[in-house]
Amino acid sequence: MASKGRERLVVIGGDAAGMAAASQARRLKGPDELEITAFERGHFTSYSACGIPYWVGGEVDGPDALIARTAEQHRERGIDLRLRTEVTELDVDGCRVRTRQVDTGEEAWTGYDKLVVATGARPVRPPLPGIDAPGVHGVQTLDDGQALLDGLERLEGDHGRRAVVVGAGYIGVEMAEAMLRRGYRVTVLNRGEQPMSTLDPDMGGLVRRAMDGMGIETVAGADVTRILTGEDGGVRAVATDDAEYPADVVVLGMGVAPETALARDAGLPLGGYGGLLTDLSMRVRGQENVWAGGDCVEVLDLVSGRERHLPLGTHANKHGQIIGANVGGGYAVFPGAVGTAVSKVCDLEIARTGLRERDARAVGLQYVTATVESTSRAGYYPGAAPMTVKMLAERRTGRLLGCQIVGREGAAKRVDIAAVALTAGMSVEQVTTLDLGYAPPFSPVWDPVQVAARKAVTKVRDAG
Amino acid sequence: MASKGRERLVVIGGDAAGMAAASQARRLKGPDELEITAFERGHFTSYSACGIPYWVGGEVDGPDALIARTAEQHRERGIDLRLRTEVTELDVDGCRVRTRQVDTGEEAWTGYDKLVVATGARPVRPPLPGIDAPGVHGVQTLDDGQALLDGLERLEGDHGRRAVVVGAGYIGVEMAEAMLRRGYRVTVLNRGEQPMSTLDPDMGGLVRRAMDGMGIETVAGADVTRILTGEDGGVRAVATDDAEYPADVVVLGMGVAPETALARDAGLPLGGYGGLLTDLSMRVRGQENVWAGGDCVEVLDLVSGRERHLPLGTHANKHGQIIGANVGGGYAVFPGAVGTAVSKVCDLEIARTGLRERDARAVGLQYVTATVESTSRAGYYPGAAPMTVKMLAERRTGRLLGCQIVGREGAAKRVDIAAVALTAGMSVEQVTTLDLGYAPPFSPVWDPVQVAARKAVTKVRDAG
Repeated sequence: MASKGRERLVVIGGDAAGMAAASQARRLKGPDELEITAFERGHFTSYSACGIPYWVGGEVDGPDALIARTAEQHRERGIDLRLRTEVTELDVDGCRVRTRQVDTGEEAWTGYDKLVVATGARPVRPPLPGIDAPGVHGVQTLDDGQALLDGLERLEGDHGRRAVVVGAGYIGVEMAEAMLRRGYRVTVLNRGEQPMSTLDPDMGGLVRRAMDGMGIETVAGADVTRILTGEDGGVRAVATDDAEYPADVVVLGMGVAPETALARDAGLPLGGYGGLLTDLSMRVRGQENVWAGGDCVEVLDLVSGRERHLPLGTHANKHGQIIGANVGGGYAVFPGAVGTAVSKVCDLEIARTGLRERDARAVGLQYVTATVESTSRAGYYPGAAPMTVKMLAERRTGRLLGCQIVGREGAAKRVDIAAVALTAGMSVEQVTTLDLGYAPPFSPVWDPVQVAARKAVTKVRDAG
Repeated sequence: MASKGRERLVVIGGDAAGMAAASQARRLKGPDELEITAFERGHFTSYSACGIPYWVGGEVDGPDALIARTAEQHRERGIDLRLRTEVTELDVDGCRVRTRQVDTGEEAWTGYDKLVVATGARPVRPPLPGIDAPGVHGVQTLDDGQALLDGLERLEGDHGRRAVVVGAGYIGVEMAEAMLRRGYRVTVLNRGEQPMSTLDPDMGGLVRRAMDGMGIETVAGADVTRILTGEDGGVRAVATDDAEYPADVVVLGMGVAPETALARDAGLPLGGYGGLLTDLSMRVRGQENVWAGGDCVEVLDLVSGRERHLPLGTHANKHGQIIGANVGGGYAVFPGAVGTAVSKVCDLEIARTGLRERDARAVGLQYVTATVESTSRAGYYPGAAPMTVKMLAERRTGRLLGCQIVGREGAAKRVDIAAVALTAGMSVEQVTTLDLGYAPPFSPVWDPVQVAARKAVTKVRDAG
């Protein structure tokens, strides 16, 4: 119970968005003014889920290294963080949440003056026969990562071990690399025509060919129908309509969906992707005292003008920061995002920002595309690595709409140039005149992004 | 002589700006419409002067690898390129230039309808006693690079060889690395208080300490008074007011100045740095049919609103492209630059864009600074390298004014984020909300540039 005159802030979800909100609010208001209680149903808080593939792959120690701030550190800063405590009901009219101790089943109601919903996302896990068999793993939480590593340990010593990764998005390709590093023969089953459907298919094709070269088998158009188990009940193979892929371990990387059952049951507004809808201050639409951020919300796509679901740690941290500022009596807004994402599989770097061709078509934008080959450094400088840059520009206006990059070292982070230019609403012609860093060890005299922009300028002019 | 009805384009200077202009003009107009003659006094054309330190250091083969396009290739595309041909006089009223064959002394006049002045820059080379002694080398042209390498070859076999580099700007620090790679003991004499005066002194201090750690001796406040020679007439030491620095070879890296004697004598308008002044289409101010670009012009600094001399291959290439478009009947403009530059000395990466503190003061801007330490990758990811980011923001408005980065692998090209944001006139608060590429192998969840921006936001607010 709050003491008199002290505001009560309740946070649902103890990961990036929730704890960034709590921390920022605490910076602005001391314990005399604001009581902060955060509920987290898992064992961990404030961790980097993005680091799990590298932990599994053995490049990073875990799970401790992945935890940015422990529960104890939060508590020391005056945040009453309750782990293994699930919020089972949200009573918006009554300004209270019902909690349940995961370990004891004990239930209680907690009242709030202000609420932050940061319930995150849950991995897509279709109800296929066998999907709950031992040896089938998600990689969403540190608990998932630990379970997978424990499973792999039991397989140590077996030869010719096979891993099947279901899904070829970021998590899928990163987990393919991780399993390859652990010595597995890896097959990636992909529903679409190419891996990395966040890219256009032509760019995804580059990723597939590179994965082939790494010894990662990729199967396109593979719709998984069931997980086959052996006599011991453990996983034996993954089946599609027309084939079976032997597996000692199965990793699910089929994407995530907003975890908003609680919010939906409470009558809070959800968008087309099932994420919470907020205003620019991250306040839930139509609510006076409820904020939401992180993987459970939809964000405004600044290029298309539509809401999208962009479950990424960067957004979650920003949302938390902004919510904390507003809850703490400051002022901050989240203007939206442009859909930037970078990833890698072994030494192949993959980046994208803005709209793909299908995204542009979906909102009625006509566009031209320009695809170029360039290098990460001056062509004559040692280590100059090839990269392919694809750019989309609006027909007639030449406005930059999107950029995708596939290449080796030095490729991915170049997408930031396009991300900032997109945010500023620049045309591809403006991109060609940008004053970017040049020296032979760092770039050709025209940065690859500008080489693409130059070609896009010509395409825009020719398209009329 | 031009045939009837065919326009005559004359280009003075056969490097980046001049030949990019010629090439772009040729793309737009065939030989039937436009005759193109380019005069270059040196042996080479279209080469990367920026690559010379890496050629000298042995990382890059030269000089051929540094030549983007040979004279023969230009001629095949219908550009009459005349090497070893110096333009000695420009008669703007008569629309003609006087040329002299460097090897024969033969002189001639050539008329033009349109003229491109791309005379570049010359290295600063003060008239000190001994400066023309054998063993004292500039590194501006491929001929200079070859002369230095020939000189070093004569020294091969000597032990404990010493190189003194005069000047600690980009060329100075890059040449220090090159000489270190060749096994020399290297001393860098620097007039200012820190190396890299294109950075603020606090950031330059980081460079100096890193150079110390590499075994490169740096001497601050060293004003060279003479070059001492031995009995054979060759260089023996470099002298300042109060010390002598033994040297087997001396490399001059004292910056460059616009090469505009020809233009000045012809009455063309020069700015405060001695560079030609142009309009946005790169046409020389007050001239109907004369364009200029590259290291011989001053460019508009988009942050300060002042003209500056920014001798860099990126600008030269852009200028040439834009001049060629305009000369060829198209349309393009160079809006200005923000002063982005990246460099490295061994594994230390150095980057800057926008205004330094002194630049801001010089134009009456009040500012706050924010300096932060961050890493190139997620802190737990292998290879995460430290970097220091300094940001300047305008007082009250929070407009981003400048950014400087000193760090290891992955530091330098991050300055592009700030360069694009500067061009767009973003505030540091807007920088904090940019949607930049994040994954553990590529960045912490807040990119280091955003970590600096967050601190700058606080500083702006606190400064009131």
